[in-house]
Amino acid sequence: VLEKWGAAKEVAIKAWEMGKSDPRKILFSAKMGLALMLISLLIFLKGQPFKDLSRYSVWAILTVVVVFEFSIGATLSKGFNRGLGTLSAGGLALGMAELCELAGEYEEVLVVLSIFIMGFIATYAKLYPTLKPYEYGFRVFLLTYCFIMVSGYRTGEFLNTAVTRFLLIALGAGVSLVINIGIYPIWAGEDLHNLVAKNLKGVATSLEGCVNGYLDCLEYERVPSKILTYQASSEDQLYSGYRAAVQSTSQEESLVSFAVWEPPHGRYMMLRYPWKNYLKVAGALRHCAFMVMALHGCILSEIQAPPEHRQVFRKELQRVGIEGAKVLRELGEKVKNMEKLGAGDILLEVHDAAEELQSKIDKKSYLLVDSESWEIGGRQKVERETPESSYLDEEHKVLEHKSRSEAILNLRATTLPRNWEGHHSNTNPPAPPTPPNSERVFKKQISWPARLSHDALDTVLIEESKTYESASVLSLATFASLLIEFVARLQNLVDAFEELSIKAAFKDPAQHSAEA
Amino acid sequence: VLEKWGAAKEVAIKAWEMGKSDPRKILFSAKMGLALMLISLLIFLKGQPFKDLSRYSVWAILTVVVVFEFSIGATLSKGFNRGLGTLSAGGLALGMAELCELAGEYEEVLVVLSIFIMGFIATYAKLYPTLKPYEYGFRVFLLTYCFIMVSGYRTGEFLNTAVTRFLLIALGAGVSLVINIGIYPIWAGEDLHNLVAKNLKGVATSLEGCVNGYLDCLEYERVPSKILTYQASSEDQLYSGYRAAVQSTSQEESLVSFAVWEPPHGRYMMLRYPWKNYLKVAGALRHCAFMVMALHGCILSEIQAPPEHRQVFRKELQRVGIEGAKVLRELGEKVKNMEKLGAGDILLEVHDAAEELQSKIDKKSYLLVDSESWEIGGRQKVERETPESSYLDEEHKVLEHKSRSEAILNLRATTLPRNWEGHHSNTNPPAPPTPPNSERVFKKQISWPARLSHDALDTVLIEESKTYESASVLSLATFASLLIEFVARLQNLVDAFEELSIKAAFKDPAQHSAEA
Repeated sequence: VLEKWGAAKEVAIKAWEMGKSDPRKILFSAKMGLALMLISLLIFLKGQPFKDLSRYSVWAILTVVVVFEFSIGATLSKGFNRGLGTLSAGGLALGMAELCELAGEYEEVLVVLSIFIMGFIATYAKLYPTLKPYEYGFRVFLLTYCFIMVSGYRTGEFLNTAVTRFLLIALGAGVSLVINIGIYPIWAGEDLHNLVAKNLKGVATSLEGCVNGYLDCLEYERVPSKILTYQASSEDQLYSGYRAAVQSTSQEESLVSFAVWEPPHGRYMMLRYPWKNYLKVAGALRHCAFMVMALHGCILSEIQAPPEHRQVFRKELQRVGIEGAKVLRELGEKVKNMEKLGAGDILLEVHDAAEELQSKIDKKSYLLVDSESWEIGGRQKVERETPESSYLDEEHKVLEHKSRSEAILNLRATTLPRNWEGHHSNTNPPAPPTPPNSERVFKKQISWPARLSHDALDTVLIEESKTYESASVLSLATFASLLIEFVARLQNLVDAFEELSIKAAFKDPAQHSAEA
Repeated sequence: VLEKWGAAKEVAIKAWEMGKSDPRKILFSAKMGLALMLISLLIFLKGQPFKDLSRYSVWAILTVVVVFEFSIGATLSKGFNRGLGTLSAGGLALGMAELCELAGEYEEVLVVLSIFIMGFIATYAKLYPTLKPYEYGFRVFLLTYCFIMVSGYRTGEFLNTAVTRFLLIALGAGVSLVINIGIYPIWAGEDLHNLVAKNLKGVATSLEGCVNGYLDCLEYERVPSKILTYQASSEDQLYSGYRAAVQSTSQEESLVSFAVWEPPHGRYMMLRYPWKNYLKVAGALRHCAFMVMALHGCILSEIQAPPEHRQVFRKELQRVGIEGAKVLRELGEKVKNMEKLGAGDILLEVHDAAEELQSKIDKKSYLLVDSESWEIGGRQKVERETPESSYLDEEHKVLEHKSRSEAILNLRATTLPRNWEGHHSNTNPPAPPTPPNSERVFKKQISWPARLSHDALDTVLIEESKTYESASVLSLATFASLLIEFVARLQNLVDAFEELSIKAAFKDPAQHSAEA
């Protein structure tokens, strides 16, 4: 008994929590109860004209149970499907019934045969992909057709059956609509709006988490098998942030398919509100989220860049991460508040950060590949010989242990930068002839400002010859270039947002702050 | 009139094509028609004991229309929901009716109130996420409860209403089941099975497409906006291959939720067939597909590696692509034929290919970063100065134009390889002291065999000092390391497949070939 009591208590707690987190669910349930209650009052109508209504009240109940959906859009679309299905099936059945009666003694055969044929056609049609949204309509069509044929045949009152049924369905649909829209309506469009805003912020959180995790050398002791098989996991915020954005396709699509049914309302007071553009924004966000996913892949990977190397790029990587997340968050806020973008370029900072990262990479690219050359040799501690890489930087002298080769590096590091970083190549010498086949590559390439001068070309230095490098070091390059690719994809997202903000006539931000 | 005729013809053609591509759809529609026909024969039962049956035949029709689903699993699960909902609601309604009658003059109030309360509870419960699969059951519960209360009250025959209704529903469900299972059954499990096999092959095609496209410098004139917003596109085979695998989550989940309802049958003759393991394989495949997606991202990217550089790694990249696709295809075949893996390591070749790629990268890593140093200068043709890189290789002398710096490279290229590639470092010198903090990085790292000897360390060569490099060159490194990461993820997929093959008792391949 105690156990049962405990289980019951648990259920009650869960139910209470669900209600607290989304009070609309409680309201909706109460609305449903109310609608059913109103319909069931039909049975108390006992006067003559209402007798049929009360007798067939089950149709009204059925309609309420089926049509009363969570969002207004879903209710309207189901109601429409039901109405259309009933009407067309009713018309067809009446016509068919006339025909069958003409057939005389073959009437039964014709009735049964027509049911087979209609069953076949309606079922076949609803399997056609583009007719999928009307699946419910086909079901109703089939049900109504069979019902009218069968019960009409039995009682001989085809017309009466059809009309009563239609009236009761209309009544049920009417009650559902009035109550569902009249009392605290729940809009699918609003849900879609919030979903997109939430996903923008989720991806921002994931991005920050990825960059910080990478820099802090976050490692999974054992990668959760949920991630390996791409299942939902609520524990890992980093993972759930982008997964939600990637995974919400079908949810968004069904919300849009409901939202288009909803009349203009509240903040969406506009005929033909561009709900489809929310899909576009969500799609563009997904395109960005895939890059965050690939960044996360760098953390999950078995191949890890040495932590010291990551520190060299810490500032730049972190800045890109922060600025990127800022852009996503700002877009999220803008969507939420339905504001247009400001006059400034929202991507300015993040592009700047990415360029900074790029130029840092350019300057330190030796860290990304041939740093091995400085210290190399078979390592007995690791079972198989793993190439080893160490980090050397003129600013942070991390390594206690100094070798001759490091001295060479330092020589190089201190001799060259004056040439590399000193002047931003305003002194361009005439360009040397370009090999013809390398030209088209640069057509589409983002051009980072060249930071080198021709002088450097002639500075010949003694350097280690080894170009051997390990996958582990390349992994840092991969992380950085995925991050840069992420930034490149942001443009696409911003474009999609701008299209939405124009089509949906979002407020101007200035206007908004004036109001406030 | 001609227009309408044309439209009708088009519809007919489309319908015909759908039937040809999946004849099961025609069969299913015919089965549906047959079931409805059988049920409608009820109306011809006019004898006394059947009178009620024929009068309430609408319930049987309703049940057929609702329960008759495409796959057996869906039919069974809906039938179960419907049965349970009806039974529990019937029981509850009968009990409630007794109670209400006791209330005397307040009967009406009680009836209506109980409807409100049940409506509230059932609706609230079905909104709870874990109860989602039973949504339909709750609907039926609500409908039955209201129906019995209302019509029972009206006629005073609660019990009779409930029993008739239940009998007719059972009849409808029985007819549906017999016809649906008896005649050419369509199994959700079979669909799931085929879906997973198909997706494996789709990802293989995408992978090959990506690698080949990258090597052939496939470029999108303008990236299709469908890709940028992650929408379905049937034109781009490369894209649709991995997208199908990534996108089929919800389809797989619904198929599994149906498949678990299906009795053992055909090739799946086993109690508790491990359908969930198909989900795991699909999830692991998805995890790989994300890498293919990232590879595709390299093709879509604005930042492109110079074509000459790609050619250097052509053989190795292509081999990894081909071997990777082979593994996926083989797994696809194995799933399709329900065979276990053979004795050999399926991943041997692809791992070898990846190692080869890795060692090639190691040897040529200078191409990935500082190749600029050979030929450099401000380029006036491009608007902003883009760093330029050219490809130099001892095997293929691509460039017509030779500069002094190239000569240096050639010197290097011909002097060194003997040291680099010659001996596979069996002559390891004692390891130099290792900086302590770089050690943990290698813990999890895949260890590629070291290909260098210590001798190389001392070979000092004159080299260009510039380490400046462009994002475009890094992009090749990114592509390669993503490809290697893809290979690493294959292990996970193979593991998931092995678990499935054991749990589902796939055939041994030897046994299979003996049979053939």
